[in-house]
Amino acid sequence: MSKPTPISGFPEWLPAQRMIEQNIVERIRATFELYGFAPLETRAVEPLDQLLRKGETSKEVYVLRRLQEEPGAQSADSLGLHFDLTVPFARFVLENSGKLQFPFRRYQIQKVWRGERPQEGRYREFLQADIDVVDRDDLPFHYDTEMPLVIGDAFASLPIPPATILVNNRKVCEGFYRGLGLDDPDQVLRTVDKLDKIGPEKVAALLVETAGATDAQARACLELASISTADASFVDAVRALGVDNPLLDEGLEELVRVVEAGVEHAPGLIRAELKIARGLDYYTGTVYETQLQGYERFGSICSGGRYENLATAGNERFPGVGISIGVSRMLGLLFGQNALGVSRSVPTCVVVALPAEELRPACDRIARSLRSRGISTEVAPSAAKFGKQIRFAERRGIPYVWFPGADGAADTIKDIRSGDQVEADASTWQPTAGDLTPVVSGS
Amino acid sequence: MSKPTPISGFPEWLPAQRMIEQNIVERIRATFELYGFAPLETRAVEPLDQLLRKGETSKEVYVLRRLQEEPGAQSADSLGLHFDLTVPFARFVLENSGKLQFPFRRYQIQKVWRGERPQEGRYREFLQADIDVVDRDDLPFHYDTEMPLVIGDAFASLPIPPATILVNNRKVCEGFYRGLGLDDPDQVLRTVDKLDKIGPEKVAALLVETAGATDAQARACLELASISTADASFVDAVRALGVDNPLLDEGLEELVRVVEAGVEHAPGLIRAELKIARGLDYYTGTVYETQLQGYERFGSICSGGRYENLATAGNERFPGVGISIGVSRMLGLLFGQNALGVSRSVPTCVVVALPAEELRPACDRIARSLRSRGISTEVAPSAAKFGKQIRFAERRGIPYVWFPGADGAADTIKDIRSGDQVEADASTWQPTAGDLTPVVSGS
Repeated sequence: MSKPTPISGFPEWLPAQRMIEQNIVERIRATFELYGFAPLETRAVEPLDQLLRKGETSKEVYVLRRLQEEPGAQSADSLGLHFDLTVPFARFVLENSGKLQFPFRRYQIQKVWRGERPQEGRYREFLQADIDVVDRDDLPFHYDTEMPLVIGDAFASLPIPPATILVNNRKVCEGFYRGLGLDDPDQVLRTVDKLDKIGPEKVAALLVETAGATDAQARACLELASISTADASFVDAVRALGVDNPLLDEGLEELVRVVEAGVEHAPGLIRAELKIARGLDYYTGTVYETQLQGYERFGSICSGGRYENLATAGNERFPGVGISIGVSRMLGLLFGQNALGVSRSVPTCVVVALPAEELRPACDRIARSLRSRGISTEVAPSAAKFGKQIRFAERRGIPYVWFPGADGAADTIKDIRSGDQVEADASTWQPTAGDLTPVVSGS
Repeated sequence: MSKPTPISGFPEWLPAQRMIEQNIVERIRATFELYGFAPLETRAVEPLDQLLRKGETSKEVYVLRRLQEEPGAQSADSLGLHFDLTVPFARFVLENSGKLQFPFRRYQIQKVWRGERPQEGRYREFLQADIDVVDRDDLPFHYDTEMPLVIGDAFASLPIPPATILVNNRKVCEGFYRGLGLDDPDQVLRTVDKLDKIGPEKVAALLVETAGATDAQARACLELASISTADASFVDAVRALGVDNPLLDEGLEELVRVVEAGVEHAPGLIRAELKIARGLDYYTGTVYETQLQGYERFGSICSGGRYENLATAGNERFPGVGISIGVSRMLGLLFGQNALGVSRSVPTCVVVALPAEELRPACDRIARSLRSRGISTEVAPSAAKFGKQIRFAERRGIPYVWFPGADGAADTIKDIRSGDQVEADASTWQPTAGDLTPVVSGS
């Protein structure tokens, strides 16, 4: 085999980075479980026709074929890799609705795949961590207010820069556009969504050109999109634009509830940001995006919203609200800035030094005794000189080396950072809490 | 959407089952980490030519194609889904050898995919939990003795029937066959490997027919394969067959070390079982299989062995030894016998009852207080009658319902299993340890 090289868009972390990822996923999971979300994993594949229901993502799907299958045969039951966790979740709910308790709260932390062109922070394979709540027929609105609080708690548990969750409500935009007299609100929304990419002037021109807006209407749309407040004062700012519409009223009332719940729970966590739209067309009310302070230019690392109609079969309907953390995306950005570290590259806390190969069984017994009390331990790979055995630990960041006592002398343990060496008994010795397991920290 | 149906070979667990799977994976992981194995995840895909290096698995590979790609175009850089975790691990070691510390101990818990025909306990997508140790140039033999001890500890931490790890050594077989005068030991091994499927008589006939054996040689091979001991006495049994060969001696010595380490660590865990061969052709010494008591007929749920030559590039060579737990396979068998249960189907420990919708903020504060002390809590979805709110908890197996006190009265908490209801303060109340998180148990 010649030396293999990485595949663009398929990131792989080295073990120390994987330890950080795992630690971060565990903390996220712990928060999700504190809120009563149950774990779920769905298969990696969905029938291709399900994945293509929303035409816009068709270009991103990886299709599967068994090697022995006739190539090019795209049969009715072709399978593709899922490109998000929402479509598989909706399918799972429909398939198992008789076995689930509603409202159903689940979290799902899995890889997803998209065949798009890789670029900074955009991968072809990446890890997502989703929460959603679905109910049969109707889902109370208070779940929309809960989503960002869960995410706020999850992010607060991580050694990362502070997060700001930006919220908006599709009803505010649609109601406002309709109140203005624009009758293709979807087209307006799609155009306003380009604001960060092409700037206000081009958006205004496009609104006139493609959405039938007058200059004054286009200006009003831009003014709405410029509203951004950390409290409910956005309502006054919208009212000052002089547009009146029942859907707008409904949207404002909902958005106030989300923002006020955020203000009570964690001041500074949430902003009403009225330009947020989210590209995917299934959101029907609240929408969320999330920025990390200092990483705003990279866009959202956690997004979602309310969808009234994602899962329907016959006369069964399951509205939901959900939000998804882009774990790989977030870690890729932070790793790129060396903003995350771990105290060692292995779980090992103690290396038992091996004075001679024939003493391995005795050293194994010491290791077993330490492990039985939850202390991760390895025995040195060979009876090399002690200097080499200490370097084995040093190179991995392992804090302690254990020396079996010779000729009836007591065992000793050496903290190889300080050089301190003390007598120790394998059945009672305990490392400091900070040394027991690797510590992940920001920098 | 019409009601979706399952896809054969792609198992999905319901949330309660997924909770069991997650709990079991965590315990396995904890044991791996106690032994100092570092976590690793590799991408799901490998270049197709890497996956097809061993011709025999070609039929099982899923090939990927982007939907917009020309169908049928199987280009040089085609990607396939990995069918095990060993091939990706070998590739990862070669690719990153300059960044890793050797000997390198890693665990890897991921899904793998095989396009083979699904049947009981055989899936197209399944979860594997692997450990391997690799070193540069040479890997000391003592790692062969360690693998089954790690697995033994991992299985002992699970609520499953006792496991027996069956071990053999390819050198014992090859040396024995050569000592007998048979000069195509691979062919003999492949034939003897069919023992459980076709029985001794057909194996003997095949040995004569395809491996150039005399009746006496065939009988000797079957006698070797019938040896099975829980201690080192297999050596005498082999010696009694009167065959002499240096490779046989080496293999017996190695096998004795593995069995004796097992006897010291956990009596009854390991058996020398001289018919074990393992189909894959890259093993060169020790081989492992694992049976769960009561599930022997389903075959091995944890297998592996020593491979001297899996990863090589130029003049770099990385021998290794590893073992892999078939997590989905094991769970599928145990779920099929209703042999695993969990005390509730959600992480939630407490449901806060909602007396009236306008009291939701107060109920949210109670929930927040409980969560801040690690108690998983949900607030009731709506201000339904208390009987309905209690049933909400009951149907999910949630043990406690919290009732906010009205008009200055103290809050109370009700254990809905016993009906006991007592005064409680959200800032201090604590569930019993057994109720804090769901408990997974065998049955």
